[in-house]
Amino acid sequence: MALLDDLKWRYATKAYDSTKKVDQKDVDKIIEAARLAPTSSGLQQFRVMVITNQELKEKIVPIAMDQQNIAQCSHLLVFVAWDKYTEKRIDDIYNYTTDQRGLPKGRFDSYTNKLKALYLPQTAEENFAHTARQAYIGLGLALAQAAELKVDSTPMEGFDNKALDELLGLRSKGLRSVVLMPLGYRDNTNDWLVKMKKVRIPKDNFVIKSK
Amino acid sequence: MALLDDLKWRYATKAYDSTKKVDQKDVDKIIEAARLAPTSSGLQQFRVMVITNQELKEKIVPIAMDQQNIAQCSHLLVFVAWDKYTEKRIDDIYNYTTDQRGLPKGRFDSYTNKLKALYLPQTAEENFAHTARQAYIGLGLALAQAAELKVDSTPMEGFDNKALDELLGLRSKGLRSVVLMPLGYRDNTNDWLVKMKKVRIPKDNFVIKSK
Repeated sequence: MALLDDLKWRYATKAYDSTKKVDQKDVDKIIEAARLAPTSSGLQQFRVMVITNQELKEKIVPIAMDQQNIAQCSHLLVFVAWDKYTEKRIDDIYNYTTDQRGLPKGRFDSYTNKLKALYLPQTAEENFAHTARQAYIGLGLALAQAAELKVDSTPMEGFDNKALDELLGLRSKGLRSVVLMPLGYRDNTNDWLVKMKKVRIPKDNFVIKSK
Repeated sequence: MALLDDLKWRYATKAYDSTKKVDQKDVDKIIEAARLAPTSSGLQQFRVMVITNQELKEKIVPIAMDQQNIAQCSHLLVFVAWDKYTEKRIDDIYNYTTDQRGLPKGRFDSYTNKLKALYLPQTAEENFAHTARQAYIGLGLALAQAAELKVDSTPMEGFDNKALDELLGLRSKGLRSVVLMPLGYRDNTNDWLVKMKKVRIPKDNFVIKSK
């Protein structure tokens, strides 16, 4: 099915049927879509954590405004991003890239030097504001891939980032939580949103006229 | 074609064949994918501006690190986001939503009051950090839609946001530029990236193990 049809089909699932599990094969495709996402300067500033442990999912509910769909879902994807830029992180990616492309190491030095001059003097918060944005590109593509597979999902921001970082041990890995994406199958009986019309502002308002 | 194949096909096009124009029908689908993007609390905090005027595209090149593909491309999409949250913006969206769904006005008051309590005391910069993130979901979906249509595109951040806002008259509309997306058809002869292998970190590094 075409992407636009997939996007019309999907919605932010509010209640999952906890008896239904998503096949690992489908989860792998959803993660792969996120992995293939373009990122600023190709730095791949974000990662995905996959949580299936029921006890752990239930511990996340109270730090996510008691959103029960986290406990109900089959797999919980946690999009995380670099807490800050470092020289090593930038070098590692570019060394890997030149290696994969059979190019001489240092081929992109003039470019990576510009990136370092831009990002390294910034505060960690400024860095993270940038790395976190990249995770949303991956989120968009993961949502599209889930819809293509008729897997329901929920893009979800309403949680205590610091508490989740602590629970998942993210900060010690140099990572911070950005956005959640439960996966599963909708509970048609208990999901208040499932029968509601999808609403978006009209195209005339969405497209801003240029000069 | 499946989304994963589309994502493998696409790349950040560095040179466009300026003689080839993208059909308006395809541009409309790409914009539609962005319009259908989910956003935090359904607020649709971002918009898209479409620029085809050659003179205007050429004026953007020098404020975008002299990236010539902006001048070469067929259509330039500029993703823009709300400069800040306001009570009116939140109310307008929710009033439109309840109207479209045939629900009583004010049906979501308890929820929108929470949003106002969260966002309105923040600084405009904090607000924009959040609205800008939403634009990246739309960017991801627009990139996927372009790829499905075999339209080339370039997600692009390297520009002077303030200068672009001024050139496009965005601030007076309560909007700020976030990210650019030229559309067109690759110039196979002059694009240094077109024949390079797409490189992403291996899945084992991309997926963070949970406890």
